[in-house]
Amino acid sequence: MKLATLRDGTRDGTLVVVRRDNQALAPAAEIAPTLQAALDRWDEVAPALAALSERLDQGAIDGQPVEVSKLGPPLPRAYEWVDGSAYINHIILVRKARGAEPPATLETDPLVYQGGSGVLLAPTDDIALTNPEWGLDFEAEICAILADTPQGTRPDDAGSYVRLLMLCNDVTLRNLIPPELAKGFGFFTSKPATAFSPFAVTPDELGPAWRDGRVHLPLRSSLNGELVGSPDAGPEMHFSFFDLIAHITKTRAFTAGTILGSGTVSNADRGKGISCLAERRMLEIIDDGAPSTPFLAAGDQVRIEMLDPDGRSIFGSIEQKVVTQ
Amino acid sequence: MKLATLRDGTRDGTLVVVRRDNQALAPAAEIAPTLQAALDRWDEVAPALAALSERLDQGAIDGQPVEVSKLGPPLPRAYEWVDGSAYINHIILVRKARGAEPPATLETDPLVYQGGSGVLLAPTDDIALTNPEWGLDFEAEICAILADTPQGTRPDDAGSYVRLLMLCNDVTLRNLIPPELAKGFGFFTSKPATAFSPFAVTPDELGPAWRDGRVHLPLRSSLNGELVGSPDAGPEMHFSFFDLIAHITKTRAFTAGTILGSGTVSNADRGKGISCLAERRMLEIIDDGAPSTPFLAAGDQVRIEMLDPDGRSIFGSIEQKVVTQ
Repeated sequence: MKLATLRDGTRDGTLVVVRRDNQALAPAAEIAPTLQAALDRWDEVAPALAALSERLDQGAIDGQPVEVSKLGPPLPRAYEWVDGSAYINHIILVRKARGAEPPATLETDPLVYQGGSGVLLAPTDDIALTNPEWGLDFEAEICAILADTPQGTRPDDAGSYVRLLMLCNDVTLRNLIPPELAKGFGFFTSKPATAFSPFAVTPDELGPAWRDGRVHLPLRSSLNGELVGSPDAGPEMHFSFFDLIAHITKTRAFTAGTILGSGTVSNADRGKGISCLAERRMLEIIDDGAPSTPFLAAGDQVRIEMLDPDGRSIFGSIEQKVVTQ
Repeated sequence: MKLATLRDGTRDGTLVVVRRDNQALAPAAEIAPTLQAALDRWDEVAPALAALSERLDQGAIDGQPVEVSKLGPPLPRAYEWVDGSAYINHIILVRKARGAEPPATLETDPLVYQGGSGVLLAPTDDIALTNPEWGLDFEAEICAILADTPQGTRPDDAGSYVRLLMLCNDVTLRNLIPPELAKGFGFFTSKPATAFSPFAVTPDELGPAWRDGRVHLPLRSSLNGELVGSPDAGPEMHFSFFDLIAHITKTRAFTAGTILGSGTVSNADRGKGISCLAERRMLEIIDDGAPSTPFLAAGDQVRIEMLDPDGRSIFGSIEQKVVTQ
């Protein structure tokens, strides 16, 4: 099933179920008022949500038209946002771009950072350009929303803790990263609010494309209407979501509603394009000695989506415009 | 006023108001069901909470006895946990202890990291000793709970966003820090769940001890019944809470209920003792060439509290026992 959050002036919005063709929605607040409330008692409410979803899909109820501009992020505020960096090609390129070495444990120990989760952006919210000198960039990723997940979860057991999948734009301020990482405490100020896709879907919506803790489909990123990347999110995800869950639960447990990101989807094959501008800039440095692609500027439009093999959008699209703040 | 959260089997517990002498509490769920709910609409509910607090303090109502073991952390799950490191003496000592240099911007650019906030510990919850090799340590700190705080907040305006103050034990796995920081993404696995004091209090409860965004009182840490530190939390907090708020809002906004930590309270005067074992171990290395104080072991008991000038506990005490997991 596909779930979304309708903005209604409250902090958490109201839960809706979305028809498989993304064209209609049905209010689900009688089952659970918000997505977080549904996640809090998932086993109890999931059957009723699934039944509502089925009635909507089969035309037993009409539902209301989906207006994406009225949707919030599926979780407008989440208890944790943990973002991995599971695509090795991305790590190598962006570190090269800032003159840093990949960590020695690149292929054996997952990279994750803890991001801000209290203020999250809707799929159509503007991206604020506070200071053009900060090097505004997008990063297209896949995310999992977790169930209550105990400390010490093993990769083999991790699948049952993945409740929902969605997409995100992990907005990044590239030029703030080097000084911030030099301090040793992580990305803090270099990561402003993250935006999410309109729909969060149960893994079964992806059919065989969800396997081994990976989403085996291309993730499409467009800039100002031009498709700039469609790397396959599957085979080159070096650490699967299951590996990432095992990693993050090494020393603590996670609460229902925790969002776990894949990191920027990236393929070694250049023909697959890019999921962030930093990669393209690095390729330009390698080829030409200097980057020619600028970072995001006011008016730029970013679109991120994933299509199923029949060309239908699974998560709806993130469509954000950069605006001067 | 003093607020606390009574555990009731739900995820967020139930809000109570606590008498100034810490001995009695009154249910406040009719005003706001949970502390997060109160923070969500603070301006609306704070007068009623204050009135209830006053009736309790003046004996107009008896209240129920406070049993600290039945209290959760004031926020059992929070939307963000951002921890500073504002005491320069602590930074210098712990970096020396792990052979790392303090950052070049030590005195001009605050250090903060984003911590896990989905699973927080009550003041009397056990500290899990998962693996003794990880180097389990406590860290005594002061925290602020923030209101909705906009991007670009200036230090001069930051005071109005501090809703409540409390204490925390920012449990740390010292031996996991060097490999984790070497990866460049922050502390992630080296920071398990954090524990908080029983009571979160409005800044006015501290009287003149709350000034300039600092708490000017000693923070007392005891290990196995022995007082090991009582450094003054005031003058040596190089970056005040107001400075920290200005820093963290540089690139994004924060939602009501965000917890902001001071970092380990530390004084240059050795006579004031320590607020974590890493500092004592570093002093032993400086004096004797090697540390003689072990990290925490099963059965160890940590106590953290702060007394007002009349010797009364302001926040109640964190009293945790280390147990093998």
